[in-house]
This record gives sequence, C-alpha cells and structure tokens, in this order.
Amino acid sequence: MTPPPRDGAPGTLLEAELREQPEVIARLVDRAPDEVRTLRRLTSGTAGVVVAARGSSDNAARYAQYLLPLRTGLPVGLAAPSLSTVYGRAPDVRGATVVAISQSGASPDVVAVLADARAQGCPTVAITNDPGSALAAQADHVLDMATGPERSVAATKTYTASLLGVALLALAMGAPDDEPEALRELAALPSRIAEAIRPADAAAVAQRLSGLTRAVAVGRGLNLCTAHEAALKITELTRALVIPYSPADLRHGPIAAVGPDTPVLLVAPDEPASASVRDLVPALRERGAPVVVLGPGADLPVPAEVPGWLSPLVCAVPAQALAWQLAVTRGVDIDHPGGLSKITTTR
Amino acid sequence: MTPPPRDGAPGTLLEAELREQPEVIARLVDRAPDEVRTLRRLTSGTAGVVVAARGSSDNAARYAQYLLPLRTGLPVGLAAPSLSTVYGRAPDVRGATVVAISQSGASPDVVAVLADARAQGCPTVAITNDPGSALAAQADHVLDMATGPERSVAATKTYTASLLGVALLALAMGAPDDEPEALRELAALPSRIAEAIRPADAAAVAQRLSGLTRAVAVGRGLNLCTAHEAALKITELTRALVIPYSPADLRHGPIAAVGPDTPVLLVAPDEPASASVRDLVPALRERGAPVVVLGPGADLPVPAEVPGWLSPLVCAVPAQALAWQLAVTRGVDIDHPGGLSKITTTR
Repeated sequence: MTPPPRDGAPGTLLEAELREQPEVIARLVDRAPDEVRTLRRLTSGTAGVVVAARGSSDNAARYAQYLLPLRTGLPVGLAAPSLSTVYGRAPDVRGATVVAISQSGASPDVVAVLADARAQGCPTVAITNDPGSALAAQADHVLDMATGPERSVAATKTYTASLLGVALLALAMGAPDDEPEALRELAALPSRIAEAIRPADAAAVAQRLSGLTRAVAVGRGLNLCTAHEAALKITELTRALVIPYSPADLRHGPIAAVGPDTPVLLVAPDEPASASVRDLVPALRERGAPVVVLGPGADLPVPAEVPGWLSPLVCAVPAQALAWQLAVTRGVDIDHPGGLSKITTTR
Repeated sequence: MTPPPRDGAPGTLLEAELREQPEVIARLVDRAPDEVRTLRRLTSGTAGVVVAARGSSDNAARYAQYLLPLRTGLPVGLAAPSLSTVYGRAPDVRGATVVAISQSGASPDVVAVLADARAQGCPTVAITNDPGSALAAQADHVLDMATGPERSVAATKTYTASLLGVALLALAMGAPDDEPEALRELAALPSRIAEAIRPADAAAVAQRLSGLTRAVAVGRGLNLCTAHEAALKITELTRALVIPYSPADLRHGPIAAVGPDTPVLLVAPDEPASASVRDLVPALRERGAPVVVLGPGADLPVPAEVPGWLSPLVCAVPAQALAWQLAVTRGVDIDHPGGLSKITTTR
C-alpha cells in the first residue's frame, strides 16, 4: 500500500515515527487519570494560561488557545519569548499557569519564559520528550511525552503527543464532572489515529499535486493548528512554500493570489468551525485552484466518530502523510530535507 | 520619481492613501495628550490586555503584543474570535482591558468579542476609522483613526493609524513619568514617515524581484508585525505568495524551502530584535536566495533616528511601497487586485 522510499531503504525514520503514533498516544492515555489528578492540584485557582512554544510545538499552543477556553472558560495567551530573551522584560503573569511545550526541552527562549514565570510564583508545566532537560528543570510538573527518541527532522509523534498533553491540561482545569466522559473519548483515540494512517490516499493526492511550488492550508478554530502544522510539515519536507490562513483572513486579501498554480488544503473535520472552511470551495474553484479536503469521506479521510475537541489529534495524521508522500513523489531526502539536522536550539 | 501607474491614470488610490500617512499620523499625534488622558482613566487598575482583530488589524494586534508588555509590563493576549462566534463560549477575561481594532468597525466577529467583554464588565476600547460603527457602539472609548475614507482594497493609512492607536494605549497604561519623552518622540514621527516614502528605492527592488511567485518575510519582536504586514500586502497586491516567519521559526524547518526562487525580505531597523534577523543573511546567501533588507541604509531605507518602540510605524511604509511597486511592475489592477472589493464583513 505504501510506496517504498525512493532510496530503496526499508523505510524512513519519518514513516516509522508516523506509524508509532497510535501506540505513543495509547501509552499517554493510560497515564491520563494520574496526570489529570496531578495537574488539577497544581493549577487549581489559576485565572488563565500562558503557553510558550516554537515551531511545531507552537501549533500545539494554538490548539491550547481554543481547547482550554472551550473546556474551562479560561483565557489563553501565547507567550512572546523575545520579551524575555531580547528585551529582558517578561510581562507580569501572576495568577496564570504557564505551560511550555518543547520536544527537546532545550530551546533557550522557551526555557527563559518558564524560568521567568517560576520566579513570579506561577505554577509551571513542561510538556516535553526529555524529562532531564533544562525546560523540565524549571517546571513544577513535567508531562513527559515518553514517545521514545524522535530522529526524523520533521516532528510527527512528538506533535500529536504534545496535543494530547494540552488535552490533559484542559481536563485538569475543567469541571471534574466532565472527566469520566472525556476519559472514555480518549480511550478510543489510538484506534482512530490508526484508522487515519492511510498513505495510499495521501499518495493519490500527492500525485495530483506533485509539481506544486506553493500552496495554502486553511483551518479554523480547533483545527487552525492543523492548517498551521500541515503548512509547516509540507514546507519543510517538500520545498514547496505553504502558507496557513483562517477562512476570513484568506478571503480578505490573500485569495487574490490563489489560482491554478496554488493548491488549497481545507481542513474540515466534523466540527462547528469547519462550515466556514468548506464555504470557501466555490470561490476557490472559481479561481481554478486545485482543492484538497481533509475530513470524513474526503480526499484525505479521517474517521467520522472523532469528537470535535480531539479532532486535531486525528487530523494531524493525514496532514503528515500528505507531506511524507509529497516528499516521496518529489524525491526529497525525507529524514534530512534541505540539509537540515535535528537542531532545536534557538537564539 | 514614481513610475506612472500602468493604466495611465493620474495615480492610484493606493498611492494617494500611502502618501497621506504623514498627515494622518500628525493629526493623531496632535490629539495624543487628550487620548492618553482618557485612556489612562479608563484602563487604570486593569491587569492585562486582550486584543481582537482580523487581517491587517491583526498585525496591529501583533505590535500590541510586544509594545504593551515592553512599556507597561502587562501581558497581552490575542483574542480568538471564533470562541465567541462559532462556539458561543467567550473566555472569562474579567480584570483585563479589551481592545478591538477594525478599520470599518463592521467585522461581526470582532464586534462579538467586544460585546462579550463589555457584558463581563471589562473596559472596552475600539480603534476604528468609523466612530458610528457597530464596533464603536460596544466601546467605552472610541479611538477614532480619523484618516478619512480608505478606498483602496489594500489598507495603508488605516494600518499605520491603528499602530499609533496601540502606541497611545501603551502610553496610557504605562508610567506617567515616561509620557513627556514619549510625546516628544511621537512629535517627530510624521516627518520620519515622510522620509520613509521612497518609491524609487522600492521600484529598484521591485525590478530585481519582478518575476517572483513566492517569498518569505522575516521580522522579530516589535517588527514581527511588519513582516506579517509586508507579507499580507505583497500577497494581496501582486499574486505572489509571501509567508512571514520569525528568524527562529524559519531556521527550524521552512528554510529548507528557501532557494534562488524564494526572495527573503528581512525587516531589520535599529532595534534589539533585529540582530537575529540580520544573522540569517549567511544561511540565506548559501542557499542562493535573493535577500532584501529593510532598515537604515539598506535596500529599503528608513531613517536611523526612529526610536525602536515606534519603528513599526516607519518600517510599514517601505513595505507598503514595495508591494505597490511590485504591483506596478507586474501590471496588477492596484486598487482592485484579484477582483476583490473593499469588503470587511466576516462570518
């Protein structure tokens, strides 16, 4: 079903790590009741949440920006790390829980935000794959992704693991009465993610788009993060430049640049925010843009039974598979695209 | 000095509105002491700021995200309007001042955020060009941009006016002792903006880049907003697709897509965050990317005497001029790019 990688090797790191996701998520789901209990104690009484992250982790922060208000009513702000590292003026966030997301836990600017928050007496949480990292050392609680090492440059399993970390935080800060149903929904997640791994569907789309040099990815609400992550993954893996928009932002200007040479990926699972994403189709077709839909029964299918609040964890997978299959089609060195190595240190 | 528009008309609306900016800003600066006094009374004792906006106004919100913490120590969050309009669950932002930015004041989702904030008892501010708008009706204080009508689809003078509105809010929420010097710095701003209107320099860059189909714009800290605004303006005016990044986000993945076919605009005024933007030059040249620098003495020059906190108001102008001159070079219908009209209603 999966086309073999161009180099004839038994498989790429990216493919292996992408396929590990049901298992990685299942392990985290098993730990969910304990994690939620600990996080509930730590965050009780806080009035808001600040999230610090970079790159793919920043897209997990975008998920938090919607999920936490929806499940808890609390406001979420995204940290601007350069306030700490460039300007030396961290804002006064007392009263908030501060959460940092970083696969490596080594990004100095994200570490700085957490250290500044801790100095202000805020409860601090690190969602990281390295419980021995500098970031973990600044956290009152470390939510260990425990994905095992991620060796491909493009993050896959650590991205979905960080989304799950955000989901657990949302449970912990939400009403205790909502927890049992949410835990049942989480229990079904690994098999839904497994169903969403369909490289043949992604390969068919990749064939249609194989010559692309630029594209647009659109999502809204809970899945704005999916549009951003799809754009990032395709850009780093295929050398096409993909720009993420919300439907409103696309309509009010950039749509002028869309035409036959600009495929548009619409992220539209069964979720209230997807209506305005799907509403774009006529305007896009009128401009001659190739349109690819990610959703139940669509070009890039996902199972229909996924609850909206967890849809970003499932929708991430076909987005990753599309980036992977485009890279295969285009003959990119998948585990080292553009000569990059797995460096996560920022200045 | 300015090449005539392709259609042979005496000038485009875009050019006229771009050239009005020193005057528009001068009028707002004249009103600054009064506005600051009113805003100081209204916002006194609030613990944070939430900003709601769309499109170009969202880039003014990005300026607020850096400027307000730097001058006041207060945290700033960007609202996610679909929480109100799609999900019907506005977060609890009591204790914060809520600011909405919209040229037309007609964007229903931005209006919804302000209405929800008012219902929660938060002080509300509208920065708008229409004091009779639905948005203004939800505001305790209306900061009227008073730019006169903006008729070109691509916003210019209302963008810089909204940045000035944010700057006045920062003064009002900051230490009163800082106000006299800040007002002196504001007084010099109109002439700095006038000096930054250099269409011949922009035209020279536009000639170099005339065939572009895609590009990257990079900024950090206070001028992350300038990179976003440059990307938006060039995308809507030229049909090239331009994607904005911070230097760290570009380095950690998307740089793989950068090459000879992907010009990179670096926004680098004399300001602490610009160092890491300029540091990208060797890596970009190694990949063969055409590099354009916006800063004092650079390809797109700005005066050197501008204080960092006001640099986005001056740097916006060469970015606008580049978009304009690229549109001229490429023969775009400048005032109606891509068949768009000046609609600002979002769903």
